Amino acid sequence: MTVDPESARVFAIRRFTQNGSHDIDDHIAVEEPMEIRVRSGPDSNRSKRSVSITMRTPGHDFELAAGFLFTERILTSPEQIRSIVFCGAPPPGRNESNVVRVETHEIDLDLDRLQRHFFTSSSCGICGKVSLEALEIGDLPPLDPDRPRFKSELIYGLPDLLRSSQPLFDQTGGLHAAGLVDAAGTIFEVREDVGRHNAVDKILGRRFLDGNTPLADLMMVVSGRASFEILQKALAAGVPGIIAVGAPSSLAVDLARRFGMTLVGFTSPGRFNVYSGSERIL
Amino acid sequence: MTVDPESARVFAIRRFTQNGSHDIDDHIAVEEPMEIRVRSGPDSNRSKRSVSITMRTPGHDFELAAGFLFTERILTSPEQIRSIVFCGAPPPGRNESNVVRVETHEIDLDLDRLQRHFFTSSSCGICGKVSLEALEIGDLPPLDPDRPRFKSELIYGLPDLLRSSQPLFDQTGGLHAAGLVDAAGTIFEVREDVGRHNAVDKILGRRFLDGNTPLADLMMVVSGRASFEILQKALAAGVPGIIAVGAPSSLAVDLARRFGMTLVGFTSPGRFNVYSGSERIL
Repeated sequence: MTVDPESARVFAIRRFTQNGSHDIDDHIAVEEPMEIRVRSGPDSNRSKRSVSITMRTPGHDFELAAGFLFTERILTSPEQIRSIVFCGAPPPGRNESNVVRVETHEIDLDLDRLQRHFFTSSSCGICGKVSLEALEIGDLPPLDPDRPRFKSELIYGLPDLLRSSQPLFDQTGGLHAAGLVDAAGTIFEVREDVGRHNAVDKILGRRFLDGNTPLADLMMVVSGRASFEILQKALAAGVPGIIAVGAPSSLAVDLARRFGMTLVGFTSPGRFNVYSGSERIL
Repeated sequence: MTVDPESARVFAIRRFTQNGSHDIDDHIAVEEPMEIRVRSGPDSNRSKRSVSITMRTPGHDFELAAGFLFTERILTSPEQIRSIVFCGAPPPGRNESNVVRVETHEIDLDLDRLQRHFFTSSSCGICGKVSLEALEIGDLPPLDPDRPRFKSELIYGLPDLLRSSQPLFDQTGGLHAAGLVDAAGTIFEVREDVGRHNAVDKILGRRFLDGNTPLADLMMVVSGRASFEILQKALAAGVPGIIAVGAPSSLAVDLARRFGMTLVGFTSPGRFNVYSGSERIL
C-alpha cells in the first residue's frame, strides 16, 4: 500500500526496552491545521467565509472539505460546487497549502447554522509554525531541563497504574484518562472523560484552583495519543513532561522539542519511546 | 472506587458471541455538551461571553471550566476568579445544568484571543436533547429498517479488515481510520487521520463528490470509539449503521435509537455488542 509522504514524517527518537536504550528513526503521523473557506452567493454579490479550522493529517483534503460541508448539511448536492482549490502558499516542507476554498454556484448557503456548531479546541493558528510562534510570545513559565528526573523502571508501569485508577473505564471501556505522577511513582488527580482534552483540563484546573501551578516536579500520563493540543495545555501549566500510552503526532513532537518538554509515547510494560527531552529519563 | 452516577448510564443491549446472542445491561460513558460562560470587566460595565461548548463526561465541571480558561491562558491566577456556578435548569435526568459560569473580579480578560481558537465540530446545541431535535427538523434521508442486512460472522472480522487497509497505521501506530463496507464484506474508501471526524468526513466527502449518497446499502467501520459527532455525520449521509472497534458514548446510543441506526461496538474476533438496530444483524 502507498503512503502519502505528507501523511507521515520520520523523526530520530530514543527507544527504551528492558535491555537498555538505543536511538532509532521512527515514522510519526503528521498533524497540521486545515482551514475550510467557502465563497457563495449570486455572482453580483459573492461572500467569503472561513467555516472551519481543524487539526488533520494532510491528504484527501478536498474530500475533507466537501465531506465537512455535506455532513454538516451546508451542501446537499455535488452540483452546488463550482470548484475546490488550495489557496495561498504551502507552509515550509509541504507541497500544498493548508487552506482549501470551496466555490459554489450562484446559491445562498446557510452558513450561519455553522455558528452554533463552533466548538473550542486549544490548537490555534492556521499553520503549525504560526501556532508555535504564538506560544513563544506569551509569558510561559520556563521549563527546567534538569527537573524532574524519572527512572525508566517507573515509566514502564505507568499505563497499568493509570488504568487501575480509572473507575469509569472499568465500567464502560470507553474513556480517555489523564493523571499527574511524581518521580516516586505516586499518581494524583486521575480524571476520565469522553474528550481527551477535557480530562487534561480537569486535572490542570484542579491544580490551578488550588494555586498549585506551575507543576515543575510532575509529569502527566495520558491514556491515548499525544496530540498538539494536549502538549499545549500541559505547557501552559508548566508540566515538563507527557507520558502517553499511544502515539504522538508530528506537531506534538515539534512543540515538545521547541520548548524542552519530555515526550514519551507507546508506553508499555516492555517498551517506550522518547521523542523529546530524554535527559529527564534515567 | 466510586463512580459519579452522572458519568455512566446503563443501557439494555444485545451481545453477540460465537455461541449466539443474548440481551444484557451494559454501562456506557455519558457524553453531554457543556457550555462555559465568562462574566468579566469592571463592576460598572460587566460583559458576558460564551467562550466554549465542548462534549464532555459530566463530573468535575468547575475544574473543567477553570482548567480550560487557564490552559488557554485567559486566566493566570485563581485569585482572578470570584465564583464558579451552574446556570439554569438541569436537563432531564441530571442534577446539574450543562452551563457553567465563571465570574471574575474587576479585570478585563482578553477573550478575543479565544476567537482564533474556535474549532469546528459537528456536535451542536447546548444539551443533547436540543441537538437531537435540531436533527429531526432537517430533511434527512429516512433509513430503511430492513436494509442492509449484515451477517454476524462478517462483523467479527471487520476490525482486522480495516486494520489491514491502513498503510499509515502500520508505519505510525497513531491514526484513526474509517471505511465503508457492504454486506458481502468488501471494504471501500478507507481513510486515516489524527482526527476521528476527519477520517469520516473524507470518506463521506468522496461519495458526496461522486454523487453517490445516501449510502443506504453500506455500513461504516471506525477504528476507535463511536461518539455523537460520528453518528451525526453518518446520518447526514444516510449511512444506516456504524460498526466501532471501541466503545460508544451515551449520546451516540441515544441518537442511533432515535433515528433507527444500527450501532455496534467493542467489535472483536470473538464478540461484539449491538446498542441499536439489531434487526439489521443476522
